[in-house]
Amino acid sequence: MIARAFLGEGGRAVFPYPTYSLYLTVCEIQGASIETCDYQRDFRLPERLSSARGDVMFLCNPNSPSGSFIPPGEVENLARGFDGLVVVDEAYVEFADADGLDLARRLDNVVVIRSFSKSHSLAGLRIGLLFGPERIVAGLRKVKDSYNLDRLTLAAGEAAVRDVEWVRANAAKIRATRSRLISRLRAMGLETLDSSANFVLARLPGDLARKACGFLKSRNIFVRYFDARLLDDALRITVGTDSETDAMLGALEEFLEGVGGRG
Amino acid sequence: MIARAFLGEGGRAVFPYPTYSLYLTVCEIQGASIETCDYQRDFRLPERLSSARGDVMFLCNPNSPSGSFIPPGEVENLARGFDGLVVVDEAYVEFADADGLDLARRLDNVVVIRSFSKSHSLAGLRIGLLFGPERIVAGLRKVKDSYNLDRLTLAAGEAAVRDVEWVRANAAKIRATRSRLISRLRAMGLETLDSSANFVLARLPGDLARKACGFLKSRNIFVRYFDARLLDDALRITVGTDSETDAMLGALEEFLEGVGGRG
Repeated sequence: MIARAFLGEGGRAVFPYPTYSLYLTVCEIQGASIETCDYQRDFRLPERLSSARGDVMFLCNPNSPSGSFIPPGEVENLARGFDGLVVVDEAYVEFADADGLDLARRLDNVVVIRSFSKSHSLAGLRIGLLFGPERIVAGLRKVKDSYNLDRLTLAAGEAAVRDVEWVRANAAKIRATRSRLISRLRAMGLETLDSSANFVLARLPGDLARKACGFLKSRNIFVRYFDARLLDDALRITVGTDSETDAMLGALEEFLEGVGGRG
Repeated sequence: MIARAFLGEGGRAVFPYPTYSLYLTVCEIQGASIETCDYQRDFRLPERLSSARGDVMFLCNPNSPSGSFIPPGEVENLARGFDGLVVVDEAYVEFADADGLDLARRLDNVVVIRSFSKSHSLAGLRIGLLFGPERIVAGLRKVKDSYNLDRLTLAAGEAAVRDVEWVRANAAKIRATRSRLISRLRAMGLETLDSSANFVLARLPGDLARKACGFLKSRNIFVRYFDARLLDDALRITVGTDSETDAMLGALEEFLEGVGGRG
């Protein structure tokens, strides 16, 4: 199988929906045509994705804003049945139980991209990594800007990559708080997905999600409400510190009691 | 006049030759068609450039590798007669006696780009600036990466932009050494262009330029030889510290005496 990857005019991108919104923006800027397949409510892999054709497939895994994770075996099946390049975006993977690096090693049409902005807490540095088959990396080198990242970022990134222990400890702390957050949300009667990321997606009855977002904002607590199809009954809540998480849970509980929306 | 700027397939770029080689590379990557107009030996503006048609014109001013400078009045005439966008690349402008900022202010089809890599001595930071009409800047914002430069670079760039005195003193020092360098090269009989940049272009007889470059390299002195049309009898010599410049001049003199090439 030869991976193609062309996203200019006439190129075709495929990805599930809802997912990280920048894929759509970037494809539109490039003039690519786009096919999306809706995730089911539980964010299992959409069956239609297995038969989709295209030049590039984007798979955010763990997915944003759902926090859901597709096991590497399923990603492999997907990639083996896809004619183009599968870009597995592992920005949040340190918060999951598995990863796709082995796929990038074994398959000739899978690349894995990672970020230092999440588990490494270096969002301000704008640095990332790509792992993939030598042939694809060589192709990317041909068109990448001939100027590299700046030297300060390279020095910080190199130090961060070596500091595996800090990243593991940081991820473990966030996962512990995440468990507690999910339990509390479910105890409040809110349908909350399991999460493999540093945020959780909780659904609220009726139109309460939008209202809850506004209420929390009035308390200087910022969660994400998406005015978008399949998401407009949900909040994406980032796992903060323990005290931030408690403050958010307290305010959300107060909101739900106020509207009688507690399940 | 409405400035167009489209460098994808079917777009057309125009620039003089020889100039900064990345314009060609970037246009080729974008699939743009390219028209170049040869500079004359003294690097005055090529007359044919005034009647060239295209979407974007690149004008490196001061030009690399010649160090030559086109006065703002001539750039204005060129821009007024050009249907597309004129990108004036002022990477080296702190070493010149004038600049094109006023053109970017007054004309609707001129943008000026600058770098912190030369006169600010921040090459490792990869930071630059663009000045231009609001409408063009708004258009660029639409397609620029939604992630900004990293925070370390922004902080350093902001500090550098305020430190006007340091930049002026640095440029003055380089200009003084440049004068001395040009005088010495001419005294050695080498045809040397006036320079408005932090390097000078000196021509050597016959095929001596390439050989001189190799000789200097063997002494750990690195000057630039371009194996390219209109440049293969010349060396681009960066203005170093006074002692670096003296070391280069001493070695070049030794080379010329050795080959009997002294004019």
